[in-house]
Amino acid sequence: MWGGSPGPLGAKAPPRIDGNAMASLSQKDLLSVEQLSVDDINLILDTAESLREVSARPVKKVPTLRGKTVINLFFEPSTRTRSSFELAEKRLSADILNFSASTSSVSKGETLLDTAHNLEAMAPDIIVIRHEAAGASHLLGRECRSSVVNAGDGMHEHPTQALLDALTVRSVKGRLEGLKVAIIGDITHSRVARSDTILFHKMDADVWVCGPPTLIPWDFDKLGCTICRRMEEAIDGADVIMMLRMQVERQNEAFVPSTREYYNFYGLTRERMRLAKKDTIVMHPGPMNRGVEIDSDVADADYSVILNQVANGVATRMAVLYLLSGNAGLKLKRSSR
Amino acid sequence: MWGGSPGPLGAKAPPRIDGNAMASLSQKDLLSVEQLSVDDINLILDTAESLREVSARPVKKVPTLRGKTVINLFFEPSTRTRSSFELAEKRLSADILNFSASTSSVSKGETLLDTAHNLEAMAPDIIVIRHEAAGASHLLGRECRSSVVNAGDGMHEHPTQALLDALTVRSVKGRLEGLKVAIIGDITHSRVARSDTILFHKMDADVWVCGPPTLIPWDFDKLGCTICRRMEEAIDGADVIMMLRMQVERQNEAFVPSTREYYNFYGLTRERMRLAKKDTIVMHPGPMNRGVEIDSDVADADYSVILNQVANGVATRMAVLYLLSGNAGLKLKRSSR
Amino acid sequence: MWGGSPGPLGAKAPPRIDGNAMASLSQKDLLSVEQLSVDDINLILDTAESLREVSARPVKKVPTLRGKTVINLFFEPSTRTRSSFELAEKRLSADILNFSASTSSVSKGETLLDTAHNLEAMAPDIIVIRHEAAGASHLLGRECRSSVVNAGDGMHEHPTQALLDALTVRSVKGRLEGLKVAIIGDITHSRVARSDTILFHKMDADVWVCGPPTLIPWDFDKLGCTICRRMEEAIDGADVIMMLRMQVERQNEAFVPSTREYYNFYGLTRERMRLAKKDTIVMHPGPMNRGVEIDSDVADADYSVILNQVANGVATRMAVLYLLSGNAGLKLKRSSR
Repeated sequence: MWGGSPGPLGAKAPPRIDGNAMASLSQKDLLSVEQLSVDDINLILDTAESLREVSARPVKKVPTLRGKTVINLFFEPSTRTRSSFELAEKRLSADILNFSASTSSVSKGETLLDTAHNLEAMAPDIIVIRHEAAGASHLLGRECRSSVVNAGDGMHEHPTQALLDALTVRSVKGRLEGLKVAIIGDITHSRVARSDTILFHKMDADVWVCGPPTLIPWDFDKLGCTICRRMEEAIDGADVIMMLRMQVERQNEAFVPSTREYYNFYGLTRERMRLAKKDTIVMHPGPMNRGVEIDSDVADADYSVILNQVANGVATRMAVLYLLSGNAGLKLKRSSR
Repeated sequence: MWGGSPGPLGAKAPPRIDGNAMASLSQKDLLSVEQLSVDDINLILDTAESLREVSARPVKKVPTLRGKTVINLFFEPSTRTRSSFELAEKRLSADILNFSASTSSVSKGETLLDTAHNLEAMAPDIIVIRHEAAGASHLLGRECRSSVVNAGDGMHEHPTQALLDALTVRSVKGRLEGLKVAIIGDITHSRVARSDTILFHKMDADVWVCGPPTLIPWDFDKLGCTICRRMEEAIDGADVIMMLRMQVERQNEAFVPSTREYYNFYGLTRERMRLAKKDTIVMHPGPMNRGVEIDSDVADADYSVILNQVANGVATRMAVLYLLSGNAGLKLKRSSR
Repeated sequence: MWGGSPGPLGAKAPPRIDGNAMASLSQKDLLSVEQLSVDDINLILDTAESLREVSARPVKKVPTLRGKTVINLFFEPSTRTRSSFELAEKRLSADILNFSASTSSVSKGETLLDTAHNLEAMAPDIIVIRHEAAGASHLLGRECRSSVVNAGDGMHEHPTQALLDALTVRSVKGRLEGLKVAIIGDITHSRVARSDTILFHKMDADVWVCGPPTLIPWDFDKLGCTICRRMEEAIDGADVIMMLRMQVERQNEAFVPSTREYYNFYGLTRERMRLAKKDTIVMHPGPMNRGVEIDSDVADADYSVILNQVANGVATRMAVLYLLSGNAGLKLKRSSR
C-alpha cells in the first residue's frame, strides 16, 4: 500500500495502515477540533509522525490516494494552507481539482449548497473547504457523501492548524499534557486561537490566552483557558509561546491604537523571552509581521519552531486525508456491493 | 488498457476499446453537434455509458491518456465545464495545462492564431477551448494538428453539453427517438439550446422551443424544432423538460421586464409540471436561479435529473477525449514512421 | 530510468543519464548565463537535444522526476514561460505547485525571504522563480537548500530563454561559434537580450546589438558585443536575426516617438531580409507584435524558427530540471544518511 519500501511507517507504527485493518477516524469529516476525541487526536498525530518521513525521501510520494479525487474549494484567498493541502494530496497521489471563489459559479449567484451538490455529482472522495462563514464546512459535511475537511471557516475553527501545532509541540517536548501554552494576540478574529485552545485543553495542557481586552471575547475562558491581560503573566514559565498574526490589513483604530503601541504591549521581544522557561519554544501560524507581533531576533532564534510548523503541516494534512479516505473506502465498498 | 479489472467496460461493451481495434470518431475535432453523424453520436454515447463506471470505482482512474497532453484554453470564466473536463482528463491520466484569458498573452495583444501556434509547438494532443467568439474553435481546429474540442464558443455551440444531455435522457428513457423534448427560456443567448436542438432533432426526437419572443431567433425552427410562445403548450405531454438559465447578470430591461414577470410566464412550477407526462424528467445545465426559471420544489424533486447531468458530463467528456485521442494516436503513428 | 523504451536518448547520447553516472551541472542552481561554463552550456544543450524526442513520442512522459516536488513561483504574469516549465515538469513526472503573486502571502506583507523559507519547509526539490527584481533568484539560491531556477528576474537575466535560443540555432546551423548573431530592439528592458548576448559571446559567436539609442545601455558592449545604430548594419551578413518584443504596453513617448516610426527604423521587413545571408534564420521570444517589430510575411516565412524556439523551450527546461535534480538527489542521499 505504501510503495516499495518495507515497513514504511517506522518500527512502532501505532496506526496499522494495511488494507485489512485500515486505521480511520471515528467520523466521516474533519470539521472541528471540538468534535475530535482524544483518541482521534492521538491517531492523527501518530499517523502524521509516521508520514512525515515521506517528505524526507528522495521519492516523496506514496500511492495511498491514487485514483481518489480531492476538491480544494477555497472561498477565501490562502497561500500556505492551500499549498500545504495540495502538496499533501500530491504526495498521496490523489487527483486534485482546485476551485477558488473568483472563478466559481458563486459569482453567478448559485448557493453554496447547489455548488456542493454539483461537486458531489462529480464523485469526489474528499472536499477541502475554506469559507468566510462559520459553519459552512458543517453544512457541506451534512449534505455530502464525500468526506469534508474544514480548512478554516470564518472566525470559528481551523482544525488542521491546531493539529499541526500539537504535532510540533509533541515532537519537541515529547508530550502535551501539563505544558503551559501561552497564546498571544488578536484572539477574537483568530480561528487558530480557538482551535488551539480547544485542542490543547483537551490534551490536558494549561492554556493561557492574552491580548488587548478589545481583542479577547469575554467568555473565551469557557473553552478551557486562563485569560490574562499582561503579556508577562502569560509568558511567565511558559513551555510554548504561540504568537498570532496581527491582521494589520483588517485592523482599524477601533481595536488597537497603532501597531507601534501593539508591539510595546504584546510584541514578543528578547527581553520578554527571559520570563519564559529555558527550553521554551516559539510558534507562529504565519505570515509574520516582523516588528509588530514578533521581533526578527526571536523569529529566527533557535527556540523558534515556526518552520517546523510548516513542515508538520504537510504531514498532518497527509494524515487527515489518509485517515478520512480509509473511511470513504469502507463506505464505498459497502454501498457498491 | 483499462487498468487491472476484467471487462471494465461492462458486458455488452459496444465500442471495442482495446489497442488493436481502437474506436474513434470520423473526424479530428469535436467542434459542433452539427458536424456529427448519428453514428458518431451513438459511438460517443455508448462509450460514455461504458466509462461512467470508472467514476464509481474506488480507484477512479484509467491509464488511457497517460503521457498525452491536454491544454484547457478558457477565454471565458467557467467553473463547471472547466472542472468537468479537468476531472475527465485526470481520470484518463492525461497531463494537463490550464490557461485562462486573464493570465494569457492575449492581454499582451497576441492574436488567437499566434497563441494557438505557440501551444501547438509544445506538442499537445488535445486542445479544449472556450471562447466568446463563435467560430474560434473552428479556426483552431483548422490551424492545429492537435484535436480540438469546443467547450462553448460564443452563442454558437456547446457540443459536449448536448451530448451529456442526450446521455442523461437515454439513460433514463432508454431511447431518444420519438420523445417530446421541451427547451424553455432564453433561446437567443444559449449555445446549449442550439446544440441540444440540433442533436435531439438529429436523433429523431420532437423538439419544442419556448421563451419570450424577444429571446427566440425568428428562424430558429430551421434547426428542426417547433417554436411556441406559451409554456403550457411546450410542456403538454413532454417527456423531457429542459429549463435554461436566465442570465440575470446580463439581462436588462430590453429583453424581459423583470425576473418576477419572467417567472410568472416561463418559470417551471409544480402546477405547470402537471401538464407534462407522468414520467417526465426535468433538466437544467446549471447554475440554477431558484425562483426565477425553476422552483426549488421542482429542482429537488425525484423527476429532476439535474445532478445526473453533472455526473454524465464527466463521463461524456472522458468519452470524447478518449475517442479523439484514438484519432491522434493513429495520426501520430503514421506521421512518425 | 527513462521508461520502457530501449536507448530512449538516441544513439549518440552524449550525457550519460543512468542511475550510476548521473550527469549534473557543476552548481546547485541555474541563476544566470553569466555563471555557466562552456561545459555546462554544452551539457545542457546536449541533454535538451536528447530530451526533445520525448515530446514527439505517443507517450510524452518519462519518470525521471517522479516524487520530486517543483514549485513554480511567479511574481510576474507569464503565459509561455510558465507553461513551458509546467509542461517540462509534467513530462518529467514531477509533482508541481503553482504560486502566483496575486494569490500569495506577499500581498499580506510577508518578505520574499519568509516566503522562501516557508516553501523550503515543505521540502521542494526545485524552485522556479520569476520576479520583477533583479537578484531575487540569487537571494533564493543562497538561502534555499533546493535548486533554484531563474525564470526571469527584472531586467537582469532569463537564462533558460538564452539556452533554448542557443539550442535552436545549433540545431539548424550545427554550431554556434563564428556565427553573426544580430539582436534588434529594446535592449535596455530586455533580459532576453542580456542573457543571449552573454551566452552567444561565450560560445564564440559574433554578437551585434542594435536598437534606438534611447533603448541601449551605453556600456552594453562590455558583455561582448558590437553596438550599432543602423539596423542594416546589424543584419548585413547575419546568420541569425533575433527580434525583440517592443513592449508597447509599457513604452511611452520618452523612448520611442511612435510604433510606426519604430517599425520604419527597426521593423524586420522582407526588404531588410535581403541584406542577411541566404540561409539566415529569424527568431523572436514572443509574443510578437506583428507590424511593429516584425512583418507577418517574415514571421511566417520558411526562415522563421520562432515556433522551433517554443518546442525547444520545453526540451531545454526538461534538461535543466533533469540536470539540477541530479544534483539535488546526490545532496539528499548524502544528508539523509
